[in-house]
Amino acid sequence: MSSWLQIPKNSPFSLANIPFGIISTKSTSKAAAIAIGDHALDLSAFASSGGFSQLPVIEKHLAVFSQPTLNDFAALGRPVHRQVREYLQNIFRADTKFPQLLKDNASLQQAALLPLSQVTNHLPMQIGDYTDFYAGLNHAYNIGVLFRGPDNALQPNYKHLPVAYHGRASSVVPSGTPLHRPQGQILLNPAADPKVPTFSPCKKLDIELELACFIGKPNDLGKPVPIDQAEDHIFGLVLMNDWSARDIQAWEYVPLGPFNAKNFGTTITPWVVLIDALEPFRAPGLEPANRESLLPYLREKRAESAYEIPLDVEVTNSGGQPTVIASSNARNLLYSFPQMVAHHTITGCNLRTGDLLGSGTISGKEAKTQGSFLEQTNGKVPLKLADGSERMFLEDGDTVTLRGMAGTEGNYVGFGDCVGTILPAVSLQ
Amino acid sequence: MSSWLQIPKNSPFSLANIPFGIISTKSTSKAAAIAIGDHALDLSAFASSGGFSQLPVIEKHLAVFSQPTLNDFAALGRPVHRQVREYLQNIFRADTKFPQLLKDNASLQQAALLPLSQVTNHLPMQIGDYTDFYAGLNHAYNIGVLFRGPDNALQPNYKHLPVAYHGRASSVVPSGTPLHRPQGQILLNPAADPKVPTFSPCKKLDIELELACFIGKPNDLGKPVPIDQAEDHIFGLVLMNDWSARDIQAWEYVPLGPFNAKNFGTTITPWVVLIDALEPFRAPGLEPANRESLLPYLREKRAESAYEIPLDVEVTNSGGQPTVIASSNARNLLYSFPQMVAHHTITGCNLRTGDLLGSGTISGKEAKTQGSFLEQTNGKVPLKLADGSERMFLEDGDTVTLRGMAGTEGNYVGFGDCVGTILPAVSLQ
Repeated sequence: MSSWLQIPKNSPFSLANIPFGIISTKSTSKAAAIAIGDHALDLSAFASSGGFSQLPVIEKHLAVFSQPTLNDFAALGRPVHRQVREYLQNIFRADTKFPQLLKDNASLQQAALLPLSQVTNHLPMQIGDYTDFYAGLNHAYNIGVLFRGPDNALQPNYKHLPVAYHGRASSVVPSGTPLHRPQGQILLNPAADPKVPTFSPCKKLDIELELACFIGKPNDLGKPVPIDQAEDHIFGLVLMNDWSARDIQAWEYVPLGPFNAKNFGTTITPWVVLIDALEPFRAPGLEPANRESLLPYLREKRAESAYEIPLDVEVTNSGGQPTVIASSNARNLLYSFPQMVAHHTITGCNLRTGDLLGSGTISGKEAKTQGSFLEQTNGKVPLKLADGSERMFLEDGDTVTLRGMAGTEGNYVGFGDCVGTILPAVSLQ
Repeated sequence: MSSWLQIPKNSPFSLANIPFGIISTKSTSKAAAIAIGDHALDLSAFASSGGFSQLPVIEKHLAVFSQPTLNDFAALGRPVHRQVREYLQNIFRADTKFPQLLKDNASLQQAALLPLSQVTNHLPMQIGDYTDFYAGLNHAYNIGVLFRGPDNALQPNYKHLPVAYHGRASSVVPSGTPLHRPQGQILLNPAADPKVPTFSPCKKLDIELELACFIGKPNDLGKPVPIDQAEDHIFGLVLMNDWSARDIQAWEYVPLGPFNAKNFGTTITPWVVLIDALEPFRAPGLEPANRESLLPYLREKRAESAYEIPLDVEVTNSGGQPTVIASSNARNLLYSFPQMVAHHTITGCNLRTGDLLGSGTISGKEAKTQGSFLEQTNGKVPLKLADGSERMFLEDGDTVTLRGMAGTEGNYVGFGDCVGTILPAVSLQ
């Protein structure tokens, strides 16, 4: 597929992608858009100029593109998303069937096809609940080795169900939002008895490289989603950095799990890559034999339950020098997003349009493939940055950028950058 | 205070209370209301008839009473809530200053003052995030004894911070909503090696007697709420039943805490008792010496950090026979709601208007004062109901009613009933 629009070969937003987001400009308020190459197409402006006139299925729903979130669009369901995406691909193809709608309409291009550098991205969805899973097998193993040694690294439940916890929705922020270093109670001397915490800015501020899915089609309370229907409840995927305060977590998490260690901020990419855009990158799941042994409500028919998506973590010091500290792949997940949906709802729990489900940290087995500092340094063996400085964990002024792109040059299906900079802890009066 | 309206002496909604909620009737859509005795006053109808004409502070904000949730009203802040409550108390007083507004206005009474039996209650707030704390000292101790024995019952962090986990907001339901017994993975034989789960309806379905507060005034991301300002962020309180699937929980909760065991339903009373209505029932905190030892960000100036609110748990079998199985008191909380707000936000986490913070289970030390079956029976010593039947945990058809009332006859400040009935597990296709 080639486009009449100039699309850089290394763009994550090739014609094969067509991710959806929410943008605003100096002169326009929030509206739906797609990203394509270095541009965003404002779908509200496109729709009001008759851009969707050749797609009857969306005709009655054009108002969804003028909303400040994608929730109403996501609620229309996967068959509609698929048709809208394919229609927009056609609009941008060199051999488009409808050149009059955009290709040959210079004034609409002027009004609706905006350089990405001139738009502001926002959270794509109003998030009802955010759940974070722990489906990265190597991550769970690596962490388990640190805490319990290699013989008992994985908990007994790990290969039977996708472990998860409820996360904090209010502090999910779009890429580019800086975050203050959190502060709270940490235990400086874990060996002391009695244990007495100290109040301090977090000294072990970490990242977690994750993918996350947004729910499109909701389910009612009391109505579990069958595994074979679960994928149709997923709107699309984003990259996510689940910032983690390891020292706060170590002290607080017994017995109910992480809380303040995770609630100060979670960064996501603003462009939602539709589940259909990822279909060509299906790959066999991590442990086929394990899939066969799962209880029926979690057993997927399709062996290609994973995605082949290379993922990178880059740390940029306050001087602006970047270092790629890890390269991983989405194939490192033991459970798929449909399995997460099936497990989440098996009790009757209702998922709503806009709910966010994180995958858990996506790590490989070897050095430099692990999606957290905890795994890479364990707070003991520092990691070298390109500027020669060392990191056990993040310093103030560090910027973390996650990237993920499936496919090949010219046809990348990527998420764009997931960026966050750490500001110093706020001073308390 | 006496009223021109007939208010039953045992009503939880005396003139001293004035709780706010959202109601609808056969002929009217959702609107704000207060409960008073056996009636609800529809505040939308009252406002549009000039009912608030003598309260200038609310004049510009009358639209808040016509919303389908109380969020906009709650966001107006505690000083406004206080004035609206006192104004409505005045409206209903026998010696009201404004008899023409309701007391002597028979047609408005007909239109706006509705028997509670004729209105439908709804969730009072759109809940952004729901957080559940673990502030019931005796509950934490009782559970700790079961799992670790009396010497290590409380975890080392327990007396330093209010332990909490993020809960599931989508499945918070108003009193009266029946819930299906959840199903999922449980471990029938915990001693087996390897451990292999079974798919089953929950066999250990439990309750948790809790209070919960709704957030009124929000805080920005990165801006912790100082302890001395925390109470002003609280809109009001409700009673809450945090239904819990103990067998699902026991298998799933390692290492990230409860998830599916808690996400299938949480029941709250639909009337929000304003924080100011509870002010007369202030009582000394559970452990004054502990309060003094807390880190400064959690240290409240006021010694009366608790509330004197008697609480009951009643189980009614499918035949309709009720048994009060536990009587407790809100004084059994080690941490106050302002302390929960201060701790929740110390990392910079933002609380939004409508967020719900549960207290954790409120148990006493002795038999029949404990707010869960787990504490009362431990699945071993059955509890006798009035009909002679026994319960380790809940059976299908059981109805659980929580009640809480502060004050004395004629002047009760209560929450009304928090009711839920357990339906059989749904059949999966």
